[in-house]
Amino acid sequence: MAYDDQNIFARILRGELPAIKVYEDEQVLAFMDIMPQADGHTLVIPKTPAITLLDLPPDAAAYTIQVVQKVANAMKKGLDVPGIVLMQLSGESAGQTVPHVHFHLIPSSVHELGKHAAQMGDQEKIKVFAERIKAAL
Amino acid sequence: MAYDDQNIFARILRGELPAIKVYEDEQVLAFMDIMPQADGHTLVIPKTPAITLLDLPPDAAAYTIQVVQKVANAMKKGLDVPGIVLMQLSGESAGQTVPHVHFHLIPSSVHELGKHAAQMGDQEKIKVFAERIKAAL
Repeated sequence: MAYDDQNIFARILRGELPAIKVYEDEQVLAFMDIMPQADGHTLVIPKTPAITLLDLPPDAAAYTIQVVQKVANAMKKGLDVPGIVLMQLSGESAGQTVPHVHFHLIPSSVHELGKHAAQMGDQEKIKVFAERIKAAL
Repeated sequence: MAYDDQNIFARILRGELPAIKVYEDEQVLAFMDIMPQADGHTLVIPKTPAITLLDLPPDAAAYTIQVVQKVANAMKKGLDVPGIVLMQLSGESAGQTVPHVHFHLIPSSVHELGKHAAQMGDQEKIKVFAERIKAAL
């Protein structure tokens, strides 16, 4: 399968769609999931075009996981959450909904998660979580 | 919280407890989860003593995710699965059961997963999956 450069994360990376960003550098972007499975649900994506973790260049994977660590620590501190679930879905059958590799960081318990990509969240509330994470970075 | 060097993964790393290994090098070990949430459920752990991804040294995280990629690709090929769920739980409240950082690689759908660490799997069946993954590495 070829990378579809019209997927929504590619469009967010090009600035064609809005996102509530918490971190960005030349290689990686972190932003709030607008259909959160829990309060503070954040996504971390490499800017490298790749559909899944399985076809992401190893160097990009290495750098991205380090940003994942940084953002997770900021979530823990800024949102005062005791635990964080990292989830990364490769393939539609695994529940992947956007064909650009992304790491989910979700506060709290995996057993209490809402369904993946099920409904829109409260955007104002999401912005507040974003500010708290940014302040802790 | 201090790292508990008597946790079961630390004991597996020291060879004090058995494991069905699929990959090992100086920095990382990959082995079958003996309480699989789906057939082929594999764990990848850094040898560095760290409780969660949040306190794992960034260099170790970078290397470990690259092994995660390698093992995930071998699972896809060796087990002929279309999708893979990567799950990494940081903190008891997130569902973490062993206090040594570990990455879960689980074939198939996140919505069809069995409960985390709920019951022992069929060890003979698990060994067959391990052989198929190793053959694909």
